[in-house]
Amino acid sequence: MPTIRLLLEYDGGGFSGWQVQPDRRTVQGEIEGIIARLTGRAARVAGAGRTDAGVHALGQVAAVSVPEGWDAERLGRSLRALLPEDIVLREAAEADAGFDPRRDARAREYQYRIGRHPTALERRRRWTVPEALDGAAIRAAARTLLGEHDFAAFSVESAARPFTRVRMEAVEVEEDPDRGELRVTYRASHFLMKMVRMMTAALVEIGRGRLGPEAPARMLAGGPRPAFAPAPAHGLYLVRVIYPQGGLTA
Amino acid sequence: MPTIRLLLEYDGGGFSGWQVQPDRRTVQGEIEGIIARLTGRAARVAGAGRTDAGVHALGQVAAVSVPEGWDAERLGRSLRALLPEDIVLREAAEADAGFDPRRDARAREYQYRIGRHPTALERRRRWTVPEALDGAAIRAAARTLLGEHDFAAFSVESAARPFTRVRMEAVEVEEDPDRGELRVTYRASHFLMKMVRMMTAALVEIGRGRLGPEAPARMLAGGPRPAFAPAPAHGLYLVRVIYPQGGLTA
Repeated sequence: MPTIRLLLEYDGGGFSGWQVQPDRRTVQGEIEGIIARLTGRAARVAGAGRTDAGVHALGQVAAVSVPEGWDAERLGRSLRALLPEDIVLREAAEADAGFDPRRDARAREYQYRIGRHPTALERRRRWTVPEALDGAAIRAAARTLLGEHDFAAFSVESAARPFTRVRMEAVEVEEDPDRGELRVTYRASHFLMKMVRMMTAALVEIGRGRLGPEAPARMLAGGPRPAFAPAPAHGLYLVRVIYPQGGLTA
Repeated sequence: MPTIRLLLEYDGGGFSGWQVQPDRRTVQGEIEGIIARLTGRAARVAGAGRTDAGVHALGQVAAVSVPEGWDAERLGRSLRALLPEDIVLREAAEADAGFDPRRDARAREYQYRIGRHPTALERRRRWTVPEALDGAAIRAAARTLLGEHDFAAFSVESAARPFTRVRMEAVEVEEDPDRGELRVTYRASHFLMKMVRMMTAALVEIGRGRLGPEAPARMLAGGPRPAFAPAPAHGLYLVRVIYPQGGLTA
């Protein structure tokens, strides 16, 4: 059974997230259904990250085992012909037997996009925050997220402690005045449920002056959790999944 | 009856074009319907350009006369509350009585976006042309479109000759390797039906090497018209409308 590694882009707007759920349109479900039809056997497509409903991917990584007679070239060609237009296969390649896209990943990168002005064309691509945000305060707060911390306060996970320890490798804040856009890119060992959307919501509250730049550090240290809702799903992108051996990334 | 000038962005994907048609969702129809409900009187919204079905606008200009008691601020606020999410009002301003967005415009600017790779997120925002295109040949051909010519060969207009004479002021070709994108921006006195999509299709044929860079000049001079289909609507954007007095542009 050859194992094939897939690099996928998708528009999260039309999906109830990555993971198969009964009676819902999901990315995993769409791809598994097509591969099962192609090969005549049930297919299990394992993804590197379980993106929530509405979250986009530029570089999701997945793996699937296919019957003998199938290889990356044949599977890639067939998938490209049959995938719906909101899922694009960027690459297909043979993988080592036992490749596990989630367990083998060394780090993930997510980007969150915030727009200053409402726009018709980008309305499902970024979160509109009409206020002027204080970029310096956001940058100062972003730096305090770096390093290894228990990020449970930025998640909806229950407290399974070793799992909520995350190594945050990079938080890059880009202001793009031409596009009226602010982008925050996070790279970490792994991400907890809704973690990027909670961190981004905190940074926006800081940019608005409703929270001080020291708030994230206090939350990471186990202090009280200020009340704010996670940023909406449609501004979030899984950019790439990083493996020790390099290779298939966005 | 105050006249209000509107600057509008819209996602063309959900509309049968700008112009009102029975039983079709159109941009003009949506806005006229909302203004009629607001003011209690039939409204006629005149646009600077009649974008086709699927064509986007970043800066369409329109004008509407409203009953006494309405001004730009009140109309703008009301429209922003009621417009569907695929139409965004960028500005509303009082205009001189008799302002005619189409007749008064000095020039228009359209942009066409071409992507090298299929993408899920930009699938309704640009035309995917998977071949490598010869940028130098496209640039050379683009220069031959400049100046005043009869552009009937690049249109589906019947030959109403004075009207098909167009002054092409600028054709800018931008290659953006980071986005795998090629953008062509056209500024002209006016545009004929499907003219940008026909010019762009010709430039792509030239970029592919199927037509020589001299083909547009031959077509403008009344030579035979090579067979090619207009580029698809979803890659086209009305960027701005330019008025002699400056003012409301994108």
